[in-house]
Amino acid sequence: MTGSIKEDCVRAAAYTGDRKVEVVEAEAVPPSAGQVQVRVAYVGLCGTDLHVVHGSMDARVTKPLVFGHEMSGTVEAVGSDVEGWVPGDRVTVMPLDWDGTCPACLAGNQHICQHLNFIGIDSPGALQALWNVPAATLVRLPADLALDAAALVEPVAVAVHDVRRSELREGEKAVVIGGGPIGVLIATVARRFGADVTVVEVDPARRAQVESLGFATIDPRTTDQIAWVEEWTGGAGADVVFEVSGAAAAVLGATDLAKARGTIVVVAIHPTPREVNLQRVFWRELRLLGARVYQRTDFEKAVELVAEGVIPTEALITEIVPLQRTQDAIGELEAGRAMKILVDVQEGQPV
Amino acid sequence: MTGSIKEDCVRAAAYTGDRKVEVVEAEAVPPSAGQVQVRVAYVGLCGTDLHVVHGSMDARVTKPLVFGHEMSGTVEAVGSDVEGWVPGDRVTVMPLDWDGTCPACLAGNQHICQHLNFIGIDSPGALQALWNVPAATLVRLPADLALDAAALVEPVAVAVHDVRRSELREGEKAVVIGGGPIGVLIATVARRFGADVTVVEVDPARRAQVESLGFATIDPRTTDQIAWVEEWTGGAGADVVFEVSGAAAAVLGATDLAKARGTIVVVAIHPTPREVNLQRVFWRELRLLGARVYQRTDFEKAVELVAEGVIPTEALITEIVPLQRTQDAIGELEAGRAMKILVDVQEGQPV
Repeated sequence: MTGSIKEDCVRAAAYTGDRKVEVVEAEAVPPSAGQVQVRVAYVGLCGTDLHVVHGSMDARVTKPLVFGHEMSGTVEAVGSDVEGWVPGDRVTVMPLDWDGTCPACLAGNQHICQHLNFIGIDSPGALQALWNVPAATLVRLPADLALDAAALVEPVAVAVHDVRRSELREGEKAVVIGGGPIGVLIATVARRFGADVTVVEVDPARRAQVESLGFATIDPRTTDQIAWVEEWTGGAGADVVFEVSGAAAAVLGATDLAKARGTIVVVAIHPTPREVNLQRVFWRELRLLGARVYQRTDFEKAVELVAEGVIPTEALITEIVPLQRTQDAIGELEAGRAMKILVDVQEGQPV
Repeated sequence: MTGSIKEDCVRAAAYTGDRKVEVVEAEAVPPSAGQVQVRVAYVGLCGTDLHVVHGSMDARVTKPLVFGHEMSGTVEAVGSDVEGWVPGDRVTVMPLDWDGTCPACLAGNQHICQHLNFIGIDSPGALQALWNVPAATLVRLPADLALDAAALVEPVAVAVHDVRRSELREGEKAVVIGGGPIGVLIATVARRFGADVTVVEVDPARRAQVESLGFATIDPRTTDQIAWVEEWTGGAGADVVFEVSGAAAAVLGATDLAKARGTIVVVAIHPTPREVNLQRVFWRELRLLGARVYQRTDFEKAVELVAEGVIPTEALITEIVPLQRTQDAIGELEAGRAMKILVDVQEGQPV
């Protein structure tokens, strides 16, 4: 990383196929009209990035793909026709670029645009020192918010979206199935919204971490989770169940945990159809909701929550690694040895 | 049926096990406090009755079970502590008896009480000449509403509940999967609420009948239903999909028919878990809702719709049979040779 690279180039991390992530040179071009050039500070790696590197999204991505979509940085340069931003502004990016013309957009659901460009998958992402994005994707960060913590705003926005979509209310009881980073963030946001939260997690290390953050946990392998939730809720069942594990067994069991007219939010990605207990959905008049990405209000709320210190960013950020260790970091995540790893994109860049 | 029976007894049809329905003698006892005795006129047979007779509910029912829960009749006698009803009043019965104390009831969802007594399954039903029911279950019928048509109020109330639960709005597009009696009623109610409705049905005879009622139909075996609905909805997908077929393939396909943030209502009974495309639920942020039985407002709306002639009762009532032919009628329904068969409970009774 200390070697010289071509003039006007920066270093980037790209998925190049065969489960490989390589450090490549990316040309730094000035921002076009409507764009802003961001000097990327930190990029968080997540489950979606693993899917990319595993090749599960090969039909969708153009290789080499500079990926990464959880980030923080500062404005470096501003294209024409952009107002409200000046170099030095601290920002994060809501990595959604919608067409504005499809039926979903016209109905006000731009975040699930039928031709959504998810920046970092469908177009180049944040694992590059200088990144041009549409000005409309920028979200302002407070001056005193550390940029490493700010790289968590995107997953926090996912959690805010999931909790908002569930319509969870103060004083209600929620079960989060899956104690990984998104599960912990959903639990944290739900608690902040006034709910009482229990996390179901099979891994003992994750359970311990979740407990250290003050949440009750259940090991579904040793505890009868249905009986536990029944007792916890006075025989009613949980108001909301968040399915964040992606496991088939969790989906099948989720319906037994919800109260009459309770809500189950499908947060995890389930690449193949899953068996669902529709008899229980019918019997208890359950509501099963898909929740995907976020809306601007979720991002703004997420910035607020991170800035207020509500999010346990220190507990969640296992490690910060330089760009050339991105591949290793992916390996750590695959092995389940880390919650969140940030890539420090600036280290080793040409100045 | 013309022979004499014991004094103070009436004839009833009961499921006695081994897929058998027999005509039995039932003692006519005066109504207790809080009860009303109804002289039953007509009883409609439905899919749930088939489940009972097939033994699928043997764990739940006490044999012999006088079943039947879609009915019309007149008040015969009124128990103590009952106000507002006099002999001769024309009535139907909302066959739900809740405990009022469970968490579902306390939350206002009495219709899905956690200890619900569904009258006609969990306690004796309407296939008897004189039937005692809690006064609170009675729903008044207009004086000029024919009692045969009025026997359809219960399934119409199911349809009203399903459509209300879907939050379908005027001008929206709905797909009903399954063109049996409940599918036709949902389509009719949805149209009355201002929606544009298409019915998916594999059986040609049922398709023809649905078309004769003015609905567009799709044969999913010969038409690409996804492409059809896409074109019909300008690329958006349907606002609401009602799954009324009970078929595994229909469940798997239903998610492809709904728009972004669209709704799928699970109306049919699915005795075993079904594969659901949760990736699509997530991707389009779909909402999957269970809908079971009805609330009082649904029953009252159903009486209104039947009385106004909105419901094609003549097209739906295939046949009216006397009580002793109940077993044959079950056979006709099993063979799919009938939409709705009514049992005339008064014919052949002792006066």
